[in-house]
Amino acid sequence: MDDFDIEHVAEVDLQDPVFVEGLPGVGHVGKLAAEHLVEELESELVRRVYSTHFPPQVSVEDGVTQLACAEVHAVYAEDTDLLVLTGDHQAQDTVGHYGLTNNLLDIVETFDAEPVYALGGVPTGELIEEYDVIGATTTEDQRERLSEFGVEFRDNEPEGGIVGISGLLLGLGERRDIEAACIMGQTSGYLVDPKSAKAVLEVLESAIGFEVDFESLEDRADEMEDVVRKIQEMEQGSPTGSDEDLRYIG
Amino acid sequence: MDDFDIEHVAEVDLQDPVFVEGLPGVGHVGKLAAEHLVEELESELVRRVYSTHFPPQVSVEDGVTQLACAEVHAVYAEDTDLLVLTGDHQAQDTVGHYGLTNNLLDIVETFDAEPVYALGGVPTGELIEEYDVIGATTTEDQRERLSEFGVEFRDNEPEGGIVGISGLLLGLGERRDIEAACIMGQTSGYLVDPKSAKAVLEVLESAIGFEVDFESLEDRADEMEDVVRKIQEMEQGSPTGSDEDLRYIG
Amino acid sequence: MDDFDIEHVAEVDLQDPVFVEGLPGVGHVGKLAAEHLVEELESELVRRVYSTHFPPQVSVEDGVTQLACAEVHAVYAEDTDLLVLTGDHQAQDTVGHYGLTNNLLDIVETFDAEPVYALGGVPTGELIEEYDVIGATTTEDQRERLSEFGVEFRDNEPEGGIVGISGLLLGLGERRDIEAACIMGQTSGYLVDPKSAKAVLEVLESAIGFEVDFESLEDRADEMEDVVRKIQEMEQGSPTGSDEDLRYIG
Amino acid sequence: MDDFDIEHVAEVDLQDPVFVEGLPGVGHVGKLAAEHLVEELESELVRRVYSTHFPPQVSVEDGVTQLACAEVHAVYAEDTDLLVLTGDHQAQDTVGHYGLTNNLLDIVETFDAEPVYALGGVPTGELIEEYDVIGATTTEDQRERLSEFGVEFRDNEPEGGIVGISGLLLGLGERRDIEAACIMGQTSGYLVDPKSAKAVLEVLESAIGFEVDFESLEDRADEMEDVVRKIQEMEQGSPTGSDEDLRYIG
Repeated sequence: MDDFDIEHVAEVDLQDPVFVEGLPGVGHVGKLAAEHLVEELESELVRRVYSTHFPPQVSVEDGVTQLACAEVHAVYAEDTDLLVLTGDHQAQDTVGHYGLTNNLLDIVETFDAEPVYALGGVPTGELIEEYDVIGATTTEDQRERLSEFGVEFRDNEPEGGIVGISGLLLGLGERRDIEAACIMGQTSGYLVDPKSAKAVLEVLESAIGFEVDFESLEDRADEMEDVVRKIQEMEQGSPTGSDEDLRYIG
Repeated sequence: MDDFDIEHVAEVDLQDPVFVEGLPGVGHVGKLAAEHLVEELESELVRRVYSTHFPPQVSVEDGVTQLACAEVHAVYAEDTDLLVLTGDHQAQDTVGHYGLTNNLLDIVETFDAEPVYALGGVPTGELIEEYDVIGATTTEDQRERLSEFGVEFRDNEPEGGIVGISGLLLGLGERRDIEAACIMGQTSGYLVDPKSAKAVLEVLESAIGFEVDFESLEDRADEMEDVVRKIQEMEQGSPTGSDEDLRYIG
Repeated sequence: MDDFDIEHVAEVDLQDPVFVEGLPGVGHVGKLAAEHLVEELESELVRRVYSTHFPPQVSVEDGVTQLACAEVHAVYAEDTDLLVLTGDHQAQDTVGHYGLTNNLLDIVETFDAEPVYALGGVPTGELIEEYDVIGATTTEDQRERLSEFGVEFRDNEPEGGIVGISGLLLGLGERRDIEAACIMGQTSGYLVDPKSAKAVLEVLESAIGFEVDFESLEDRADEMEDVVRKIQEMEQGSPTGSDEDLRYIG
Repeated sequence: MDDFDIEHVAEVDLQDPVFVEGLPGVGHVGKLAAEHLVEELESELVRRVYSTHFPPQVSVEDGVTQLACAEVHAVYAEDTDLLVLTGDHQAQDTVGHYGLTNNLLDIVETFDAEPVYALGGVPTGELIEEYDVIGATTTEDQRERLSEFGVEFRDNEPEGGIVGISGLLLGLGERRDIEAACIMGQTSGYLVDPKSAKAVLEVLESAIGFEVDFESLEDRADEMEDVVRKIQEMEQGSPTGSDEDLRYIG
């Protein structure tokens, strides 16, 4: 096995696909959104990417193991095809992040799957009512186009830049003349956030031109809200309950 | 010296061997079990695997040093031959874990030593009366076969997957069409656990078809129980002793 | 992409340039000084250095991304040309530090840009009135020359040596017969320090022979002093305020 | 520059030299002992070993820098020649430890400088009156020979084995059929310990057959004892002074 090893699970023929990435990150927004597409729309696993820079680990489901990997799915929306990347891991070191992203961009080029949309979350540090969607792109053209779909581009946001595979899909993508954009939902940063994932997907629907049902994501959002409400009630009952605690937990 | 270096200590001719791995891990269950086989049955050291990804370290016994390594022993049970891997170290980094496992799988292929049984422990977080043995395999066939010998396969257990060399023997083994299973004894996770090692070995006896005496392992289990009992007595004598403390220490 | 990748942004023809480095470090003294030269004098971006040893990250400005890199600028002072290195990152690991520095020294050799001046700060652990400038060089000749411009060379200072790219520009520079010097402004070590950056630049003006306006750097210094003053006032108002606290915050 | 780079500072012709290593470690015993040989006997720097696995750092003396390295000195005792390795750093990672040691063993082979004596300390956790010297070797022959000179070989000591360059000189040395021994002075583990270094050197004098003056090492030992005495006095004066504190500081 080389440092990176791509398993061809199925060969597919896609019409003008775009590439969508959703690996774990802030509020698991990108991961929730990408997995929602794979689950709700007609989809098919086409590639697994293994790497010695992933954790040395297998997951276990019903007693059968799967080596740590990232998975590329063909997703067939009504009017458009997508390649959607999902997975449970970022690379474990700096060199691995760069190498993994370059292998993903090879797949993007093979399928001519442009533009690349990296999905993620932007932490705000507090509970959110209105879920703004923040963007960053490799080109000003792409910025103008996405502005029309409600993506906000701000002077200096996200402040610390974009880290991990999402960031490198843009940074290394640009070096290879691949158009790429990062679409990030605001999220508290403290909890898995299905509502933020929905906000991101709604923008993506307009930008790419497809439709997906949100019922299951809304159900998960309701469950999360129940959890938050119970924590808040416990806190208000407790003698040390305060705004500050709320912000910490929420 | 390359990144991995295999020393041929003895050449042996084995009949349809299987491969058994027991490196350090949760409760040292796998390590205890594998070392017990090497000590109780007729055995012979056949390979040492050195690596720049092991700690930069020698062990010292009676003033003579041995470079950090993993050891592969030929073990001759009455009706079957085994290759048993023992050692004091996991690899020190992600890339090392993958590389070491691939070198071990080379040895598995050289000796045609299938299936591979990775032995280990599953932490439960509390003291255990009944030692269930949990399994994970690369194939559903293997899962069915091991179920007959009392191995339990559960929906989502072990929850965090299987990490380290044990996990990769399955994950990378599957990629090379080598049948592999992980057999894990439940254990508190707080103490070295000879009883859990015995439970794992009892399953292995049935699955492979051999017999081993457990007296020495039972003696070590008795010693550990004395230790636990003394800790519990100390705690009950102390004014702050409580169930919670017990769980923490036990 | 290789481990290091140099993007040619512009080709320029420089007259006897020197090389000036200012990456992040103690008090950001070197970074402030190098960026001041690029901003105040006529300058042009000529090279970007990318590396898999930089953080896996893009920065975002007005919604458009830039992959983590170090930037080499041609800076045209009245009587002399400079190559000035700026950036937001040191390498992320030991091997990366050495590799990045060797790539920078390749650029130094290509432009025949000697001597190399690495700019930085020396932490003193307390607020400073007089900003001494400490030096270290690869040759005694260079030490004598810089002494004339007010750089102080002391027995055993900086005590822990010089770490990071600055240190290696001297250490690896000497191995390649490139004359190099490190010019370090004293600084508390607790705050970004524009005054220390100015002290370093004043020495550099004399050593290289150029002039730069310091107004913007002095404005930033005034802002920092306002911050310090407010912290001190808050402390003196507080019942636990003391000299020791001051030293910690200042 | 490669991962390892050996600078030839001087070419020398040595008669049947042995190799002595003293890099930083427990109580700096090995470092003190090796540096004492270089300082007290006639000596000459012959090689510098640079590595990208050393810290990215230069040391500064009188304003002139030296890139992080290990130094090999020819040392001329009355009746025998030695190659003595000194330096301020261990390698920074596992792969670097193995690579550095292999480069050192190349030098050992070039000069045919056998046996290799790695010097170090064994921590006891308490202040010491009698400084026993513990040994470990690659061969039983060497063990018997060193026993005659007062080196003690114990069942399971040092308990955690020998880590770092000292350990690997034995472990990798044995793999290359180079005879090697580690000679370790007992030391508290809390302080730099010139007395332990003297005890190690006294054994080395007998084993190799040379003489060295210990006055400067004894002076340093006296200074350390003054420090310890003052700490003890301060503690006995303080209301919380106790045996336990003593052990911690001593």
